[in-house]
Amino acid sequence: MNNYKLVIQYDGGRYKGWQRLGSGESTIQGKIENVLSEMIGRPIEIIGCSRTDAGVHAFAQIANFKIGENIPVLEMKQYLNRYLPQDISVIDVSIEGERFHARYNSKAKTYLYKIWNEDYSNPFMRRFSMHVEETLDISKMEIAAKQFLGEHDFTAFSNAKSKKKSMVRNIYSIEIEKVDGFLQIRVSGDGFLYNMVRKIVGTLIEVGLGKRDAKEISGMIHSKDRGSVSSLADPGGLYLESIEF
Amino acid sequence: MNNYKLVIQYDGGRYKGWQRLGSGESTIQGKIENVLSEMIGRPIEIIGCSRTDAGVHAFAQIANFKIGENIPVLEMKQYLNRYLPQDISVIDVSIEGERFHARYNSKAKTYLYKIWNEDYSNPFMRRFSMHVEETLDISKMEIAAKQFLGEHDFTAFSNAKSKKKSMVRNIYSIEIEKVDGFLQIRVSGDGFLYNMVRKIVGTLIEVGLGKRDAKEISGMIHSKDRGSVSSLADPGGLYLESIEF
Repeated sequence: MNNYKLVIQYDGGRYKGWQRLGSGESTIQGKIENVLSEMIGRPIEIIGCSRTDAGVHAFAQIANFKIGENIPVLEMKQYLNRYLPQDISVIDVSIEGERFHARYNSKAKTYLYKIWNEDYSNPFMRRFSMHVEETLDISKMEIAAKQFLGEHDFTAFSNAKSKKKSMVRNIYSIEIEKVDGFLQIRVSGDGFLYNMVRKIVGTLIEVGLGKRDAKEISGMIHSKDRGSVSSLADPGGLYLESIEF
Repeated sequence: MNNYKLVIQYDGGRYKGWQRLGSGESTIQGKIENVLSEMIGRPIEIIGCSRTDAGVHAFAQIANFKIGENIPVLEMKQYLNRYLPQDISVIDVSIEGERFHARYNSKAKTYLYKIWNEDYSNPFMRRFSMHVEETLDISKMEIAAKQFLGEHDFTAFSNAKSKKKSMVRNIYSIEIEKVDGFLQIRVSGDGFLYNMVRKIVGTLIEVGLGKRDAKEISGMIHSKDRGSVSSLADPGGLYLESIEF
């Protein structure tokens, strides 16, 4: 068997997220599986690393699948890019060892959130960032961000749809930087619950706007109460940036 | 009279260009004039520096208009950005001296063209760049670019619709640089004829692909024959970047 690894980039704007759903629903996994199944001549299932939400983008989603066929990697890449819609691109195809598994082997995931923080909208990035008109106080946001670091039960920052056995996740780092008119928030961790990054970012924005005190975060986490978290940042500003194996 | 200057950014993708046309046509000038006219309570006409083509973008288009009213610049900026569509932003409003004229006083205009030069499409930039899959030969393109520099009659690189008195323009510089997966071509000059930048870029792409010899450019210019120029780069990759006064 050949274990193919795909590196995938997408504008998630018109999709219901990564994960394949019912036949009427447009998902990134579904689109890629359809093209691969056409290419190989039978149904193919792929394993994606991160189940990005509806509307969320990726610079480098990772997926793998095993087949008996020997298809040259360049041929597969070209076929996929010819038949996939233009908002999904396969930027690399490789053959990995038999034990490589896109979901189980990942060690760290990094998500990037882009906030356009000027008093006018950015015509080129309006679908790829969240617009916050009032100036955000970065130093307050940094104080708040520190409290998310480390291993915590993140129930409070999850969606009720999260059906994971454990709600404990380890956040390795949160970096906030000003890049031109953008405020970029980069969150790395061993994994994230459904809506977790968007709830963290939404809460950091509340702190940056002075609507919430930076010191409240620890209490919110420890409460394990979803009701304590009220803000969910737009999906259009969020990107799965990189995955470490 | 107060002479207001606007700095305007836009995604030209869904417009018929800068210049106001008949009432049914959507143009950037038209949209801005409509909002200003609503604000001031009578028809307002603005003077734009560059008449960008349909589908062409701008980082910093300049326009001006004179009114007797004293409207604070911040108030005007906020009003415009509240009522303009999100693909048009007014990034600055100022009051200039009486003699300032957006069209007649400009000394240099710089256009930027973005080519995405990878073998897969860029999901985030597909409306904001032209995709060329085959690798472009930059050194050949640079040899070709040099021949455009200086003062020439650019009839061959214009559209038959150009109704200017003089077809002579002075190109100050053409810079080609590789930035990540993009090839960026930056063209500065005292002014450009209708379609001129897109025809220059289209021809440079032909040279970069080996479809045309770099040495042909001088002959094409001197021919003054529109038939000698066959390639017009997509409008979506072109940006009016800056204007010097």
